[in-house]
Amino acid sequence: MAIHKKLSLMIPGPTPVPEKVLQALSKHPIGHRSKEFQTLVKSTTENLQWLHQTQNDVLTITGSGTAAMEAGIINTLSKGDKVICGENGKFGERWVKVAKEFGLEVIKIDSEWGTPLNPEKFKTVLKEDTKKEIKAVILTHSETSTGVINDLETISSYIAEHDKALSIVDCVTSLGACNVPVDQWKLDIVASGSQKGYMIPPGLSFISMSEKAWAATEKSNLPKFYLDLKSYRKSLLSNSNPYTPAVNLVFALDEALKMMREEGLENIFLRHNKHKLAMSNSLKALNLQLFANENHLSPSITAVKTGEIDAEEFRKAIKNNFDILLAGGQDHLKGKIFRVGHLGYVHDRDIITAISAISSTLLSLGNISAQQAGKALEVAYQYLEAN
Amino acid sequence: MAIHKKLSLMIPGPTPVPEKVLQALSKHPIGHRSKEFQTLVKSTTENLQWLHQTQNDVLTITGSGTAAMEAGIINTLSKGDKVICGENGKFGERWVKVAKEFGLEVIKIDSEWGTPLNPEKFKTVLKEDTKKEIKAVILTHSETSTGVINDLETISSYIAEHDKALSIVDCVTSLGACNVPVDQWKLDIVASGSQKGYMIPPGLSFISMSEKAWAATEKSNLPKFYLDLKSYRKSLLSNSNPYTPAVNLVFALDEALKMMREEGLENIFLRHNKHKLAMSNSLKALNLQLFANENHLSPSITAVKTGEIDAEEFRKAIKNNFDILLAGGQDHLKGKIFRVGHLGYVHDRDIITAISAISSTLLSLGNISAQQAGKALEVAYQYLEAN
Repeated sequence: MAIHKKLSLMIPGPTPVPEKVLQALSKHPIGHRSKEFQTLVKSTTENLQWLHQTQNDVLTITGSGTAAMEAGIINTLSKGDKVICGENGKFGERWVKVAKEFGLEVIKIDSEWGTPLNPEKFKTVLKEDTKKEIKAVILTHSETSTGVINDLETISSYIAEHDKALSIVDCVTSLGACNVPVDQWKLDIVASGSQKGYMIPPGLSFISMSEKAWAATEKSNLPKFYLDLKSYRKSLLSNSNPYTPAVNLVFALDEALKMMREEGLENIFLRHNKHKLAMSNSLKALNLQLFANENHLSPSITAVKTGEIDAEEFRKAIKNNFDILLAGGQDHLKGKIFRVGHLGYVHDRDIITAISAISSTLLSLGNISAQQAGKALEVAYQYLEAN
Repeated sequence: MAIHKKLSLMIPGPTPVPEKVLQALSKHPIGHRSKEFQTLVKSTTENLQWLHQTQNDVLTITGSGTAAMEAGIINTLSKGDKVICGENGKFGERWVKVAKEFGLEVIKIDSEWGTPLNPEKFKTVLKEDTKKEIKAVILTHSETSTGVINDLETISSYIAEHDKALSIVDCVTSLGACNVPVDQWKLDIVASGSQKGYMIPPGLSFISMSEKAWAATEKSNLPKFYLDLKSYRKSLLSNSNPYTPAVNLVFALDEALKMMREEGLENIFLRHNKHKLAMSNSLKALNLQLFANENHLSPSITAVKTGEIDAEEFRKAIKNNFDILLAGGQDHLKGKIFRVGHLGYVHDRDIITAISAISSTLLSLGNISAQQAGKALEVAYQYLEAN
């Protein structure tokens, strides 16, 4: 079975993995209680703190990003606690579900899919909470399902003013793609996953915990064992793990974080920003409408409406003809949009390639002129060369 | 940093990984919602059922074996439920902790570390439970911390007689090493992990669920999300996963399970059995005392008392001189025993090698004669050639 023809991943995860990282992944495993592995845990932890721009503990969990978000919630809250959940997409919805599953009282602040959460709504609800009953604000930074980035900086400033509530943030498709200065924005709990900006395959997730978050763990009464973060913190004191970690993925993580340090945070953010601009503007030049509000585009995913064209058929054509995997719309958006991932190990060439493939397909359908296809490339090039 | 000199892993996990499996691991990831990945999920699920000798669902979770055991417990039980926990080692202890964390009422049936659980004690407690209040029996098949195998066949027959209680069994170091016929023994929930008999690096765990176990999930009121097995079952209907799985570890799993099918269950069990016999008997020939009761030796791990010699110093010498990693004793056994893992991708040569390294070290310490060292090899060879 030819599962690897010449696949190019342009989905919001798993993202492409550099050869160096794949080579690290395929080393023979070592003992997870050995000094050699402790050295790796120390190095990856320091580099994770660098990536998060924080002095906080950053813990590595074997599991998906959902596991890390759940851990943030169940380690700091108790049954009946009041929380705000921001909801403007599939992942926002998921955190509402998790909160309810664990018996939290959810105040939902939502916004139509494709539009950003309104920070002022958070401000109002938090200001009105004079009794300080709200224990946490749970929200998604970059909404992977819609390509919208929420204004985390402003919302987190309101959470900091409230003083009692914790911020619990899904930064799965923002961390490593745009600025998430954890200490500066006073973010208490930040969750992310390996198959995104980290440029490694799925299987690891990360959670940064502020001192305020750790203090909250002392009062939390929700039951947990595998995701009990206090065990991870205790083990981290000796650069170890409470349970057998995914050793080979940690090899890959170490290599990928070194590559990221070499590139530098600023350059990583600039690269993602220019790819976002090149992708979104050239798609517009192809007469396609962006799904997300243009002032709030995620640095990692561009979601596009396909109008009369069935988005699933369109994706299939791109996959069959060019072996580029794009993501479809989720739930009610299935068939109506497709999503281009430009997150992690993405090169200018990948952007040009995706635009060319999309243009070729639209040309073959008779939806655009050669002139427009050329224009799209020109637009892309302008943004790519701007940095 | 030379973390890979020429390391030989002889610990009970991570175990050595075949080159073929490492190569599968290092392939470029593919989309986890793609048809190609669905094909892989289908194939690995069928092969997992083969390995478990069952028609039950076998689910794959990204997480350690502890995550799978926790999932088995929290998906089928409710707060206040009465359970029996078998405890004769570190892992038995852990399942008691998990049960208590989730508010279960634990009846502990224990046995001194190094000795097996007495099946008759289970029989008695289960027989006395005429009101059928016991909801589950939680136990460990092969106790990795002591090298003891518990008599799961007999204990599970008593659980089956009780009829109401579920069996929830940690088969982490028994599955893929000795016979665990899930359907024949009527095992409801069986948990295992990738870095053991499966011959792949850590990061995946597996859980087999009987129809009786699924029925119990309908009544369970413990909160869960990431480890909610009903989501996994639902996704498995379309050969998919509820959350992003560790795609590359699934590539490795697929390859390893194919290798296992090629070798055949009987041959795998015979190989582990002869390695157990060769290892334990040659260590005895070196005047070392086995830690575990000799009639109940695990097929995967041999634990050895070192008497006057500090076991940790002994392990270090073997590591420094021969780059063979042995496992130490845990908790109160630290410094008193070492443990040789012979689980997974282990060849006759590895057994001879470990024995030679141990013999050389004992010779250098003046603890044995050359005659004894030679005798140990002779004994090993007898067992190895017997099959």
